[in-house]
Amino acid sequence: MPRPRLGHIQFINCLPLYYGMVKNDVLLDVDLVKANPADLAAELLDGRLDVAPIPAIEYARHADRFVLLPDIAISSEGEVQSILLVSKVPAGELSGRTVALTDTSRTSQVLARVLIAKRWGAEATYTEMPPDLPAMLRDADAALLIGDEALRAYWDHPEGLYTYDLGHEWTEWTGLPMVYAVWAVRRDYAEENPAAVQAVADALTNSLSYCRGHLDDISEYAARWEQFPAEKFRSYFDALRFRFQPQFREGLARYLAEAVAIGQLDSVPAIEVFGE
Amino acid sequence: MPRPRLGHIQFINCLPLYYGMVKNDVLLDVDLVKANPADLAAELLDGRLDVAPIPAIEYARHADRFVLLPDIAISSEGEVQSILLVSKVPAGELSGRTVALTDTSRTSQVLARVLIAKRWGAEATYTEMPPDLPAMLRDADAALLIGDEALRAYWDHPEGLYTYDLGHEWTEWTGLPMVYAVWAVRRDYAEENPAAVQAVADALTNSLSYCRGHLDDISEYAARWEQFPAEKFRSYFDALRFRFQPQFREGLARYLAEAVAIGQLDSVPAIEVFGE
Repeated sequence: MPRPRLGHIQFINCLPLYYGMVKNDVLLDVDLVKANPADLAAELLDGRLDVAPIPAIEYARHADRFVLLPDIAISSEGEVQSILLVSKVPAGELSGRTVALTDTSRTSQVLARVLIAKRWGAEATYTEMPPDLPAMLRDADAALLIGDEALRAYWDHPEGLYTYDLGHEWTEWTGLPMVYAVWAVRRDYAEENPAAVQAVADALTNSLSYCRGHLDDISEYAARWEQFPAEKFRSYFDALRFRFQPQFREGLARYLAEAVAIGQLDSVPAIEVFGE
Repeated sequence: MPRPRLGHIQFINCLPLYYGMVKNDVLLDVDLVKANPADLAAELLDGRLDVAPIPAIEYARHADRFVLLPDIAISSEGEVQSILLVSKVPAGELSGRTVALTDTSRTSQVLARVLIAKRWGAEATYTEMPPDLPAMLRDADAALLIGDEALRAYWDHPEGLYTYDLGHEWTEWTGLPMVYAVWAVRRDYAEENPAAVQAVADALTNSLSYCRGHLDDISEYAARWEQFPAEKFRSYFDALRFRFQPQFREGLARYLAEAVAIGQLDSVPAIEVFGE
């Protein structure tokens, strides 16, 4: 049997997990493929991967093809720092205005639309653009950023602009955590290779528990190779959760229901979890 | 500064090195890209990689663009097991006959041509084909295999066929080791980032010294995921060298001179080594 082909998100949010995987020698027993979440979802659907973290909304659009790992997700309870709406006006005044959505995101695009429509009651127009804040704000009144660009704006607090951490706003509004990505397994792979899937699940759980105990080291390590100082990484890694316990699944179900309510998803699928 | 982008050959011959890299946490400080040697050479030439193992003959064809790491190569002294000429007739009788060369190889194709022409004095005709022994021997009188296909033939000794281990034949003929792949660094990257190159060189050296001390473990590990038993892997890993000391460099220079002699290379380049 070949090694399970496991996707990995090549972004800072998954760096603590990667660190834990390296320290636990997980890369000997999986064939790791690094890509962005949307590409990982495509590779999983094509059968080129067996297990991968994919955007929550992409999971929901193809839920019949997948089962989820039980104990891992990319999630937050309150602030997330790396998903930011930057606006020239208060969010409640975005009606009739244009919001530029970064084209690097799936789940966050829908999250921004949900919050703008339902938390802030604004009927905005949306456009998709590459993640370049000055360019976005030339063409639009507000911009959704994720990842490095969002972290930079979160830490710099650009002058004269309103910034909204969408993880914080979601939890304030719903009282629930938010789930951005889930670890999906191809259903046919899970049926044929339950022991391999369990081994991957265990390896990820061990890696997470290692990384939770070493966040200072990981922040120092991140600062060595990435463009932010260690204390910023530490603050970011504290905000991020990798949890998918019942309350988080409730947050995911609520998010998907809101996505249906604003016409961004056909229906809320039953969430099927491996081994449950 | 971003992590150095390091290529890795996704074949069993580099599995001991990979094992050493994982156990030494090297994957935290390089961005590892796995591919076959010819593609790694192309990515290095394109500037998409900084350091990579590439076929010896490809290095020689673009030597002005590269410097080499001093203490690592894929080499053998005598048998190599995974580069095999399988023939219907003794090699000395291949004149006027056709030899099918696997299209998965660069250096070994030239090695086979050198040995057939000069060790065995046979003037054969060559054709390139995918590595499928029965199909190759339908169309040709002999076949060059590398990798898994070669190992299978080496271990199975196909009945009624002559098999030649080209590492063994080379060393019998020249009294020298053979170098199949070298770790090349883009010259401009080495000039701009000598500390990063040194760090990669040290990490690889440490990984090699780790793997040399754990060949039993690595053979057991290989047998868990690949299709051969542990004792075969152990025998193969004993045959492989990762050395590039003076005698090995002499072997490389001789190989390149022979490649020139049979018209497969324009001239023998001066071999430039990082830090020497």
